[in-house]
Amino acid sequence: MSLREDALHMHQVKQGKLEIQAKVEVKNAQDLSLAYSPGVAEPCKEIFENPEKVYDFTMKGNMVGLVTNGTSVLGLGNIGAEASLPVMEGKAILFKSFAGVDAFPIALNTTDVDKIVETVKLMAPTFGGIHLEDIAAPDCFEIEERLNKELTIPVYHDDQHGTAIVTLAGLVNALKIVKKKMNDLKVVINGAGASGIAISRLLYSYGVTNMIICDTKGAIYAGRPVSMNPAKESVAIYTNAKGEKGYLSDVMKGADVFIGVSVADTLTLEMVQTMKEDAIIFALANPVPEISPADAKAAGAIIVGTGRSDFPNQVNNVLAFPGIFRGALDVRATTINEEMKKAAAEAIAALIADSELTADYVIPSPFDPRVAPAVAAAVAKAAMETNVARIQVDPEQVRLKTMKLTAI
Amino acid sequence: MSLREDALHMHQVKQGKLEIQAKVEVKNAQDLSLAYSPGVAEPCKEIFENPEKVYDFTMKGNMVGLVTNGTSVLGLGNIGAEASLPVMEGKAILFKSFAGVDAFPIALNTTDVDKIVETVKLMAPTFGGIHLEDIAAPDCFEIEERLNKELTIPVYHDDQHGTAIVTLAGLVNALKIVKKKMNDLKVVINGAGASGIAISRLLYSYGVTNMIICDTKGAIYAGRPVSMNPAKESVAIYTNAKGEKGYLSDVMKGADVFIGVSVADTLTLEMVQTMKEDAIIFALANPVPEISPADAKAAGAIIVGTGRSDFPNQVNNVLAFPGIFRGALDVRATTINEEMKKAAAEAIAALIADSELTADYVIPSPFDPRVAPAVAAAVAKAAMETNVARIQVDPEQVRLKTMKLTAI
Repeated sequence: MSLREDALHMHQVKQGKLEIQAKVEVKNAQDLSLAYSPGVAEPCKEIFENPEKVYDFTMKGNMVGLVTNGTSVLGLGNIGAEASLPVMEGKAILFKSFAGVDAFPIALNTTDVDKIVETVKLMAPTFGGIHLEDIAAPDCFEIEERLNKELTIPVYHDDQHGTAIVTLAGLVNALKIVKKKMNDLKVVINGAGASGIAISRLLYSYGVTNMIICDTKGAIYAGRPVSMNPAKESVAIYTNAKGEKGYLSDVMKGADVFIGVSVADTLTLEMVQTMKEDAIIFALANPVPEISPADAKAAGAIIVGTGRSDFPNQVNNVLAFPGIFRGALDVRATTINEEMKKAAAEAIAALIADSELTADYVIPSPFDPRVAPAVAAAVAKAAMETNVARIQVDPEQVRLKTMKLTAI
Repeated sequence: MSLREDALHMHQVKQGKLEIQAKVEVKNAQDLSLAYSPGVAEPCKEIFENPEKVYDFTMKGNMVGLVTNGTSVLGLGNIGAEASLPVMEGKAILFKSFAGVDAFPIALNTTDVDKIVETVKLMAPTFGGIHLEDIAAPDCFEIEERLNKELTIPVYHDDQHGTAIVTLAGLVNALKIVKKKMNDLKVVINGAGASGIAISRLLYSYGVTNMIICDTKGAIYAGRPVSMNPAKESVAIYTNAKGEKGYLSDVMKGADVFIGVSVADTLTLEMVQTMKEDAIIFALANPVPEISPADAKAAGAIIVGTGRSDFPNQVNNVLAFPGIFRGALDVRATTINEEMKKAAAEAIAALIADSELTADYVIPSPFDPRVAPAVAAAVAKAAMETNVARIQVDPEQVRLKTMKLTAI
């Protein structure tokens, strides 16, 4: 059978991919009298008297709400809430098998930012964290920002931060090979959607000061008269200090790093040839990258990463989100802040020893079972250090627990 | 250990009672390429092109949203969203073990009717049905009514209909013993909350025309000057035709049936003594009924049911909701209408053969494994007959499938 037929079969054979299961045995009337009436009144009363105990007595502390409105699904675009469900169910499987996190899809039938914010706030009691997914830019920025302000559980938009964290991890390792420093780099990001904006923010907070972001209208600069939005205005403040104008081909001159989060074949060999020596390229458009690794290398690039599993250095979000939520949940973090994201990136990068580093191995495999445990421990530690953890735990215990929960 | 200690231990040992599990094996990169990117795009595209296929390719068709706002939980009252979660998780376990239905708790942090309706509508794409639970009257009536009008998936408020259906089942069988007919009865219902109102509605649609509902202010009649609400006004139209006023002790005179959905010890021996011959009593207050079965029988009642498992004839909602949703989901019903509720009650009643009927056995045991399969088949059949089913299935196949899914 073809991939298409196999995939449809897998989804149809059991009517989707997720089910709800009891964690406790309920085999007889006695069990039922504990799990349900009358015994269940006891944990209810405990939580009513001390709300923090909801983490002890319910699923909340291990349950992430996977929230989407289906406006930016895979490469399919705005296909709506119901059509996005297969992706959400798949994501929930990844959460569970990589880090033992329970995640439940909530597909919302609206494109209204206020309604999404309101709905997620109202349903927050059920969840220990909110994972936003496949919500189109620029709405995704406002939704995440408002929810993070108004909720006391972590809110994380994967399309932004997942890509940013894994790209940063790859860049950290790539710089060891080419012996350059973050604050000496010129970085060009092509694409000003969710991940492009988030990458620029994380790199900036990591010390990259010379950065230009391009969209289809070319370099973004403060006050550009066309195709701006509040997110682009905000990045224009800390990027493109010289106010360079022009297209990708113009600003690529002299760049050390290219990060593409755009569409197929937008980076030409000629543009790569104008980059500095030891050029680093992350061409993350999927399934067809901005430039093929072969072409990039032929044009002089030293290190190339893509979003694909069949090339080296795959930038795969699954390296980040399972461990990040595992760590955040385990310390009952109130948010996922920049320090936690940086800690995640560094933990991913550090799994490759200096002696193992090669141009084709700057990012660990998505199936490396050390990743989620290392990320979880680092994120838990950073949460405690930045005072967003509601409980204190030993990061090493988080790592060991996550190892046991990882089923890959 | 005590019940309290056992119950707290059960809830704490694994941090709640529910988890999310994959229904399909995801063991390697090949599995992942089908369950997630790139294969997952195929079912997404199918659903985008034909929305009905969401039932084939996702969990939606077997997934019920358990929605509460925690305003009327057990006997605990308004304890709020988070404190209600243990009950919701318990309910989900019942759904799964009695009828193989996946159910996920959504505890909403609001008492605003408009916000609850809006939120449930927005999240409906994820669910094949909505089970409202522990929402206080009278808000529960408006919420259910509006959602049923505005959604094309079934919406069912268990505190209303579960009790009503099982009580009707018990009454159907009780009348066989005492040889009375529905339309000859005088029925007194004590309690005008969610279940009292719903019982009156279901009994009326089943042919009971002589009925009086009491609340703490006494008999409800059209235009009563105190303590009315839209739900009480609506029942005043079809109950208490003679406009009787006075307290429970007044209207109990000459009653054939008493149904209590109120509080402990509100029915006295003296009141029972004023009932007609062969009196039938359902004293459903929990944990202490309106009158004890021993007292009721001493005062002349022939058949007594309660809400308790340690007395005969337990009116337990679990006899109804798992099979009702199983049947509704299996025909992709757009609603759960009165005919489906009546069919459920009749199916429950019919499981006790005439030869088996006794005063202490008019309602099957909650653990009778025939119940959910019989209810599911009857509900599926009624849905098809009343044209609210989106697909046609053989009710006998529904029964057999449910038998396989029942794990009690």
